[in-house]
Amino acid sequence: MNEFEFIDSIKQHTYKQPSVIKGVGDDAAVFRQTSRDIVTAVDTFVEGVHFSRSTMNPFHIGYRLLAVNISDLSAMGAIPAFYLVSIIIPDSWNNEELAGIYQGMAEIAADYRMDLIGGDTVSGGDLTLSITVIGYVDRGKARYRSTAKNDDIVFVTGTLGDSAAGFYMLNNPGNYTNETFYHQRHRMPDMRSDFANELGALSRVTLNDISDGIASEAHEIAEASRISLTIYEDKLPVSMNFNQFSADQQHEWKLYGGEDFELLGAVSRNEWETLQDIAAETGTQVTEVGYIDDANDDEYDVWLKDRNNHKQLLKKRGYTHRSR
Amino acid sequence: MNEFEFIDSIKQHTYKQPSVIKGVGDDAAVFRQTSRDIVTAVDTFVEGVHFSRSTMNPFHIGYRLLAVNISDLSAMGAIPAFYLVSIIIPDSWNNEELAGIYQGMAEIAADYRMDLIGGDTVSGGDLTLSITVIGYVDRGKARYRSTAKNDDIVFVTGTLGDSAAGFYMLNNPGNYTNETFYHQRHRMPDMRSDFANELGALSRVTLNDISDGIASEAHEIAEASRISLTIYEDKLPVSMNFNQFSADQQHEWKLYGGEDFELLGAVSRNEWETLQDIAAETGTQVTEVGYIDDANDDEYDVWLKDRNNHKQLLKKRGYTHRSR
Repeated sequence: MNEFEFIDSIKQHTYKQPSVIKGVGDDAAVFRQTSRDIVTAVDTFVEGVHFSRSTMNPFHIGYRLLAVNISDLSAMGAIPAFYLVSIIIPDSWNNEELAGIYQGMAEIAADYRMDLIGGDTVSGGDLTLSITVIGYVDRGKARYRSTAKNDDIVFVTGTLGDSAAGFYMLNNPGNYTNETFYHQRHRMPDMRSDFANELGALSRVTLNDISDGIASEAHEIAEASRISLTIYEDKLPVSMNFNQFSADQQHEWKLYGGEDFELLGAVSRNEWETLQDIAAETGTQVTEVGYIDDANDDEYDVWLKDRNNHKQLLKKRGYTHRSR
Repeated sequence: MNEFEFIDSIKQHTYKQPSVIKGVGDDAAVFRQTSRDIVTAVDTFVEGVHFSRSTMNPFHIGYRLLAVNISDLSAMGAIPAFYLVSIIIPDSWNNEELAGIYQGMAEIAADYRMDLIGGDTVSGGDLTLSITVIGYVDRGKARYRSTAKNDDIVFVTGTLGDSAAGFYMLNNPGNYTNETFYHQRHRMPDMRSDFANELGALSRVTLNDISDGIASEAHEIAEASRISLTIYEDKLPVSMNFNQFSADQQHEWKLYGGEDFELLGAVSRNEWETLQDIAAETGTQVTEVGYIDDANDDEYDVWLKDRNNHKQLLKKRGYTHRSR
């Protein structure tokens, strides 16, 4: 398979999104959207920094990288529509492995009805993918991290720490319970697009995706919203059999373990019931994990309360390989 | 300047495009466009492959890389609106040099009223920029390379070979005429957005931007349109003093020298006058350089005619460092 055959092999031949006018094959792609707002983000991933062939096969690498970007759209309340992939290819990867990465992306793209509408292919030293995603959100309904207010309920979707646990299992082979589940949560995380998009029904909701651990994301909300945020450690939702790990591991992974791609949010108490209804309709686990306070002077603190109601400042530290 | 200060230093604080709803600062950017179609493309540039500090300072690198992407939008008949920049930063570049790259991008962005609405910053081995551009085109007026028809006039904007000549001068210091002009054409090429966008007035026009040399782009039009294309070598427009170079150099640079970012197009004879009017209104030099024929069987040939009307097949070879 030469370069042109490779490019042809990754090309979509039909498009799922009716808004596509021109996909791959010209100088640029063209689409039309007259009723909804358009949301876009880009992330770059470098082999050895953001992913490794030692814990992932090419399919899972592709699946997970596109998942990261879909998660950014979910955090805006948007549903995904398109992606463009720029890839730098070193000699150490063959076309079949590269095709595996694109198949992984195509798999999650199919689940979320996304189309690959563009990209670029260059040769270089480290395998690197830059993925641009484009999504849609109902007009005026994009959700930000800057809108949390005093007395809001803080919530998370799903469970925390699973991806870090799965990554640990892959790197430390042993006798674990539910190992496949944790591997899967690391390699093929679920996205919360439907839930996030349905939140358009609320008058206000603050959203951030948990890519770098809840501690880090809570700080982003606190700073952007200029408020103080408190989390009850005991209320943080974890998966079945998460207690097979040491107390230190559990604490570390659920607070600082990145890449769960769940959503951390804040909503006023009078819309909490509506939010729970939306969660039920979209099959999304949602847990109340804390609350918002006014900031003390200009200190946008994040607190962690233990079961004895002792509170301590939660450090900003997170899973920091991804710099934004 | 630490990383956060660097990111803050490159952030725009106001936006020129009224369609921006949310720029940099959340998980993704948000914009609204209800009347025009949206055009998007991405290109990746690696130091040592696509640019070098030996012939360009950081400002020119930034200027030129964004120019490449604006050119892709022009080739679609679109005007630029937004860009997102993902950058991989090696230790060998300091923050001041990096800021220079962003200033170069900001300079051309200001000329074309573009806003920087997103990006990503990661550490890595080779300085690498992935630039995503988003532009607008009147509804249904995106221009493709696949629409050329028998008896169309083939035209180009501006002059050809200047960028290659400038690059040669930078690498082979000597006593040249108009050296500054050629350096400038290489480092800070003009874009044809206004002209391209005004072509919306035509019922049909085929467009491709000349990033890899006219020979290569002519082949793209021939193949996409399934026609045959003939170019008169003597009609190819060149700059003043281009004849200071050898006949071989002139031939090489105007046919195969890349990165002039002019437009190659085809238009029916009955709209040629309208096209010339648009060129005059937008201050764009346009030259008739050839014509379209039906393909002979399935051979989508490109021919070059010399002054004696001898024709020979024009090879597909182009300036191939950029793989698409």
